[in-house]
Amino acid sequence: MTNRRIVLARRPVGAPKSTDFSLVQAPVPTPAEGEVLCRTIYLSLDPYMRGRISEARSYARSVEIGQVIVGGTVGQVVESRHPGLAPGDYVLGNDGWQEYGVSPGAGLRRLDPRQAPISTALGVLGMPGLTAYVGLLDIGRPKPGETVVVSAASGAVGSVVGQIAKIKGCRAVGVAGARAKCDHVVRELGFDACVSHHDADLAGALRAACPAGIDVYFENVGGRVLETVLGLINVRARIPLCGLIAQYNATGAVAGPDLRPLLVTRSLIQGFIISDHLDRLPDFLADVGGWLREGRLKYREDIVDGLERAPEAFIGLLEGRNFGKLLVRVAPDPAR
Amino acid sequence: MTNRRIVLARRPVGAPKSTDFSLVQAPVPTPAEGEVLCRTIYLSLDPYMRGRISEARSYARSVEIGQVIVGGTVGQVVESRHPGLAPGDYVLGNDGWQEYGVSPGAGLRRLDPRQAPISTALGVLGMPGLTAYVGLLDIGRPKPGETVVVSAASGAVGSVVGQIAKIKGCRAVGVAGARAKCDHVVRELGFDACVSHHDADLAGALRAACPAGIDVYFENVGGRVLETVLGLINVRARIPLCGLIAQYNATGAVAGPDLRPLLVTRSLIQGFIISDHLDRLPDFLADVGGWLREGRLKYREDIVDGLERAPEAFIGLLEGRNFGKLLVRVAPDPAR
Repeated sequence: MTNRRIVLARRPVGAPKSTDFSLVQAPVPTPAEGEVLCRTIYLSLDPYMRGRISEARSYARSVEIGQVIVGGTVGQVVESRHPGLAPGDYVLGNDGWQEYGVSPGAGLRRLDPRQAPISTALGVLGMPGLTAYVGLLDIGRPKPGETVVVSAASGAVGSVVGQIAKIKGCRAVGVAGARAKCDHVVRELGFDACVSHHDADLAGALRAACPAGIDVYFENVGGRVLETVLGLINVRARIPLCGLIAQYNATGAVAGPDLRPLLVTRSLIQGFIISDHLDRLPDFLADVGGWLREGRLKYREDIVDGLERAPEAFIGLLEGRNFGKLLVRVAPDPAR
Repeated sequence: MTNRRIVLARRPVGAPKSTDFSLVQAPVPTPAEGEVLCRTIYLSLDPYMRGRISEARSYARSVEIGQVIVGGTVGQVVESRHPGLAPGDYVLGNDGWQEYGVSPGAGLRRLDPRQAPISTALGVLGMPGLTAYVGLLDIGRPKPGETVVVSAASGAVGSVVGQIAKIKGCRAVGVAGARAKCDHVVRELGFDACVSHHDADLAGALRAACPAGIDVYFENVGGRVLETVLGLINVRARIPLCGLIAQYNATGAVAGPDLRPLLVTRSLIQGFIISDHLDRLPDFLADVGGWLREGRLKYREDIVDGLERAPEAFIGLLEGRNFGKLLVRVAPDPAR
């Protein structure tokens, strides 16, 4: 049995290219005492990975050349030397871009496929969902009747932000690219409106969608959208800064928005990283799990089959080509 | 008796010019019931006034063409129709750029010249001091041992920020322009270091002055200093955004800093305006008044004589030509 893995071949300069990655074969590893061998079923692809394969200052160590790219995974236990897990169990782990991984059993979360599809542990019930929950509720602190705008609105995080905003009694306005995404956000997810960042008059479109101004802007993107939103924020607006995907492929510092509106409106921009907020996991799972079961919260997955397609899918993610939470199905999902 | 007043002649485009202001004469006004006539002794000149004479969106209404420019004043009561005030009393008011003003007595704060020089009610014990106090302590929340950087460090606000930071057990680092200002900030005010924003290697100078990175950056200026500071902030840094004087004369939107460091470090930028925080006045007066009396806090005033020189002094303020809290002495100070 061999283990196919995707390793970093060279550090991308600007937009990653497929030649920055390489598919290698290795023996399937053997678990030591306390460890578990898992077969990856789903690999999560997320924008933060762009930072992890660069050398720029970030919040976590860079992936070295020749190393497997990091990533959250849902897998099935093949061999366990940890008392709490048995072969056949589904677990949430961090095995990265490979078919098999070994890791300490203590770090794995067991998933019950009867509660929710196991893939959701990487999306709406996983890190992206928790990011939306914490960023919106703890940093954005929306009050009923306020207007919440979120960029990358059809994505794994943005789609949850807008739906929680609706549940909390707010007006939810998305910003997305393609028309189909904007339609999905309004018709399927129940946002009040969604504007396209391709709109030549983005400011006019946002003003029309937010007649009472903007109280919370959940930022995933940066660039022109942020600049435009800042012109429309109300007094004491809150801007949770979750991502700046528009500039992740930039090769140097990028000019940011004029900050004067923050001053005039006494508003805040607060950067955050979900690993600082894991204490919110129980509340998140109770709330979002409940809303999912009640049908008040929907999600969409964009599933790509085959580990070998991960680089191409990741490159597309940075260009906004995915539609919904992007996952690579590395092996068939026996629970589906 | 005539009242000389400076009114807005036209809205400045870019840097204000002396021809944007005009000196006019009017009769000295008469107080109605409940009102007080004051003779202005000191007029405060502050950067926020640039916003008030422009049409741009701001937190307060613009001064109209032909109106007296707004401004905080310390004056002496000439005639009182308010029971709490008598002729000869010194008061803090908002009579603006004129020699005499009438206003409701209820809005005036009586000053005791035995407690502190009356001019300090416009500086270290007034709005600039309160701005420093609230911005640093409530938004910056410095902890002992942390590094606090403040721009416009020799100015009315910045000088208080750094000194309070020292009192709170922090390392205080200023950023100023002229060498004489940097020297003053270190030698007279007791900052640990001060770098010049004219330094070709500003990043290198700041890094040397902040060997443990930057935890709080009190922002008065914007532009290159903010950009450079963001490259040096520590995890969970706090940036109270008090002013952006470097761009107040700009004729359009100004590119801001790359916000990526906020994300990587989970830091916040929080705009604030002192009028939202007047509930902190009693604590401020007790603390800062006490530190002044104990000699732990120093201040420097830059006093210009004659109302007619207010426009020129204000133009200089926006270019950083003042050295310390800028005041116009409109009439002799009988208490000094």
